[in-house]
Amino acid sequence: MEQLFQQRSEAYREAIEAYLSGQFCESTPWGVLHDAMRYSLLAGGKRVRPMLSLEFCRLHGGQWQKALPLGCALEMVHTYSLIHDDLPCMDNDDLRRGKATNHKVYGETMAVLAGDGLQSAAFSLIAAAPELTADQRIEAVAVLAEACGPEGMAAGQVLDLTPHGSEKELLLLHRLKTGAMIAGAAELGCIAADASAAARRQARQYALQLGLAFQVYDDVLDVTGSEAELGKSTGSDREEGKFTFVNLLGVDGALDYARRCTEEAKAALDGMADTQFLRELADRLIRRRN
Amino acid sequence: MEQLFQQRSEAYREAIEAYLSGQFCESTPWGVLHDAMRYSLLAGGKRVRPMLSLEFCRLHGGQWQKALPLGCALEMVHTYSLIHDDLPCMDNDDLRRGKATNHKVYGETMAVLAGDGLQSAAFSLIAAAPELTADQRIEAVAVLAEACGPEGMAAGQVLDLTPHGSEKELLLLHRLKTGAMIAGAAELGCIAADASAAARRQARQYALQLGLAFQVYDDVLDVTGSEAELGKSTGSDREEGKFTFVNLLGVDGALDYARRCTEEAKAALDGMADTQFLRELADRLIRRRN
Repeated sequence: MEQLFQQRSEAYREAIEAYLSGQFCESTPWGVLHDAMRYSLLAGGKRVRPMLSLEFCRLHGGQWQKALPLGCALEMVHTYSLIHDDLPCMDNDDLRRGKATNHKVYGETMAVLAGDGLQSAAFSLIAAAPELTADQRIEAVAVLAEACGPEGMAAGQVLDLTPHGSEKELLLLHRLKTGAMIAGAAELGCIAADASAAARRQARQYALQLGLAFQVYDDVLDVTGSEAELGKSTGSDREEGKFTFVNLLGVDGALDYARRCTEEAKAALDGMADTQFLRELADRLIRRRN
Repeated sequence: MEQLFQQRSEAYREAIEAYLSGQFCESTPWGVLHDAMRYSLLAGGKRVRPMLSLEFCRLHGGQWQKALPLGCALEMVHTYSLIHDDLPCMDNDDLRRGKATNHKVYGETMAVLAGDGLQSAAFSLIAAAPELTADQRIEAVAVLAEACGPEGMAAGQVLDLTPHGSEKELLLLHRLKTGAMIAGAAELGCIAADASAAARRQARQYALQLGLAFQVYDDVLDVTGSEAELGKSTGSDREEGKFTFVNLLGVDGALDYARRCTEEAKAALDGMADTQFLRELADRLIRRRN
């Protein structure tokens, strides 16, 4: 199992990096915009979201390469959200994944535009996806736009700005801020494989629990990790007085909560063959150091 | 002619306002995001872009109502660009169309998110457009994403930040910053009517010249108009030392240039029946006071 996971995730990661590296390479008078977009896009993310797209495509009988434009489009949108999140008027972060944030390198104006441009480019990528029918592509546009838009990720970002204190509020926040995009990534893979509506619901269910486990575990790492391990300023969420699962349940309680979400994610796959990769991925996300 | 233009543009405008007013009305815990998006979306724009979509759809034999989701999606993207343009780290404007800018009312953070959300929502709107085939919808996504993205409007915004001094540079700047979206609006109308590739090229040609005339005339108004007439801070472009067509050609020369572009826009329609509305629109854009 260990070996299958390593090999497959390495193959996926290489394909994703190669695909993203091929974007925005043209030489133009506005090259600095391309530079700023590439800087954050190729800053060494874990690529969990596009990997989910590729794996769900494969799982449902599609060639996983067909899901590359969809998964990478979603990764572009994810990247735009990180660039805008880090802006001085948002979280005002200097570091992201151990590197200077986009606006620290290119300035605020360019960081706003790089984020904006990445969002548009994501939809261009889907619209031009080869080997997918118009129906598949428009379904993918609908899923991505819903996942990142004002009833998805953007709503979660707004909730994150407003006081919240109950488990119910935290769950809604995480479901929108990160869950919607992770579920969208899984669903995009199903779309590339022309999977059934039931398969899409199952994929979303797995991904939503995975995303929640990831987020709760992030709260734990934010308290227990060091700056070097996290690649961002430690405890910044706490310092700003944000309410997290650790505040709600303590470190041990939050860890336990993350483990239960992971079990629920895996349970969502029951009755489906060939799900070892997704199960291993879920287990690893709550064992990671950064 | 006068009457036909008045009646048709009134019918279009009413349909556009009604359509946009129906967006983001749901009551949600993140209602302030909806409020911020609606504030700018319904701030009384001229709606030239969606009108072009409706008219080109009608002109090519389509029911103009079919183009409403496409034209209004483009108007949402246009609105997002105005919100982000006005941000302190961009043009730092306090007034837009005579009203306080988005960040002056909702704060910078919400203004960034409202812009981001409007972009996503635009693509959701196209993906869900009724009465259009998947082929038409994905074509529309491609056209809009290209028009606003890093090879279109976003590129133009970057060029606007960098020094430019020649006619050639000004033309490229305007073609990207505003021309791409105006041409996109016209093309979306053609898509809704299933018009030919030749018809789409003709529509783009008209719209690019129209957009250029509009922009050059804007430079003139910026010098000759009063703040009340313009609804924004007069001369702000000059104060920041931006190079405009007035710098290049003087007021009279720029006016003359705008008129020539208008003639070229109308000439692009030659050989096509029923183009009075588009000709009248072109003439009016360089007679407007604001």
